[in-house]
Amino acid sequence: MHANNEIGTVQPVAKIGAVLRDHSAYFHSDAVQTYGAYPLNVHELGVDLLTLSSHKIYGPKGVGALYVRDGVPIEPLIHGGGQERERRAGTENVAAIVGFGEAVRWMLRERDETTARITRLRDLLIGFIRERIPGVILNGHPTLRLPGNVHFSFPNLDAESLLVSLDLAGVAASSGSACTSGSIEPSHVLAAIGAASEERGAALRLTLGRETTEEEVRETVERMARVVTRLARV
Amino acid sequence: MHANNEIGTVQPVAKIGAVLRDHSAYFHSDAVQTYGAYPLNVHELGVDLLTLSSHKIYGPKGVGALYVRDGVPIEPLIHGGGQERERRAGTENVAAIVGFGEAVRWMLRERDETTARITRLRDLLIGFIRERIPGVILNGHPTLRLPGNVHFSFPNLDAESLLVSLDLAGVAASSGSACTSGSIEPSHVLAAIGAASEERGAALRLTLGRETTEEEVRETVERMARVVTRLARV
Repeated sequence: MHANNEIGTVQPVAKIGAVLRDHSAYFHSDAVQTYGAYPLNVHELGVDLLTLSSHKIYGPKGVGALYVRDGVPIEPLIHGGGQERERRAGTENVAAIVGFGEAVRWMLRERDETTARITRLRDLLIGFIRERIPGVILNGHPTLRLPGNVHFSFPNLDAESLLVSLDLAGVAASSGSACTSGSIEPSHVLAAIGAASEERGAALRLTLGRETTEEEVRETVERMARVVTRLARV
Repeated sequence: MHANNEIGTVQPVAKIGAVLRDHSAYFHSDAVQTYGAYPLNVHELGVDLLTLSSHKIYGPKGVGALYVRDGVPIEPLIHGGGQERERRAGTENVAAIVGFGEAVRWMLRERDETTARITRLRDLLIGFIRERIPGVILNGHPTLRLPGNVHFSFPNLDAESLLVSLDLAGVAASSGSACTSGSIEPSHVLAAIGAASEERGAALRLTLGRETTEEEVRETVERMARVVTRLARV
């Protein structure tokens, strides 16, 4: 993964790619999280394969792209008609492909500006939460993280109570990645970085997007602070 | 396949299902071609699994449905996040799903009427072609075939010349299924029914849809007859 989808940490993919240059291993990276945030260059990253997804850059769902370096053999997952050069059988979704292309054009026009703006809001949000809710622990890298990702542990709080109370207070947060929605398993990401202990309490992800405003950031922190104070009293 | 995607023959799936009822085999049928044409009942068909596709009933591309009888185990093709109950990892395409649902509602309202109308046009087209282009051979079942499917062999004609000439004359035809577009392999379907011999010449599929008119059918046959006469002279 170029950036982790739970805690937002951006991985040193280019360094891994450089190490692998003299090895016969194939190097694939999932850049779905970073594609809309940073300039990506497959040669600089040193990847043989790179995955992108449309809906993460505000394009239509149901379409993505796989970069395959010339000469890298790939085995199809979906077999059937040979009309897609035996790569992925199925009727191509032209509307979605065109929509993805258009989303890429939009994204490229405003990416750098958007990334700078969201990064500033992210750091505001992190700062405000730390100010208003003492004792919280930021998970993931403080700066090498996705522009829109904020992930905190709230010691002494229960994840489900916190999520439900925030939801009732109009704050949409997540206890993990969207890919594990509804799962009651503890996060494998937090476990891997040694941040899944019981003392660290509830883990919570907040995500900022292209439309997020500073006012929303301030209001979110106010509501979170009220919810946390109420829960701490129980 | 409930109906063949090249020659349109509707298969006796219900009879196969009845035979299999006392066997432990699982029975899957691809009903992508028939779903918009006939009422389908998984119990009457005796299938354990049934595949449907949205774009074949004028819904959006990129979405389909798989009926799975209670208790039939399925193994996922696409692995990853567990949020789709471990069945098919990925972010669900809500817009496409809603569009498919709406297409189903439209289809159900007009299916019987549309099938009757297209079947009549299909039989007109078959009759006109036989009248105007002597020596052609209808492939597939004369009546147990998809409402919109017409498939003929044109003895002594070359498939590519015929297709290209028809295209220039404004007639969009196909030499096989869409899933084999661009393929130069002879049709496995025609080979299987013993209709792939060289003497049978060019094989051609014409497809009628919801918008096809009788005037278009008549005009198509006129243009085809002119093209075939010209090619026969060469």
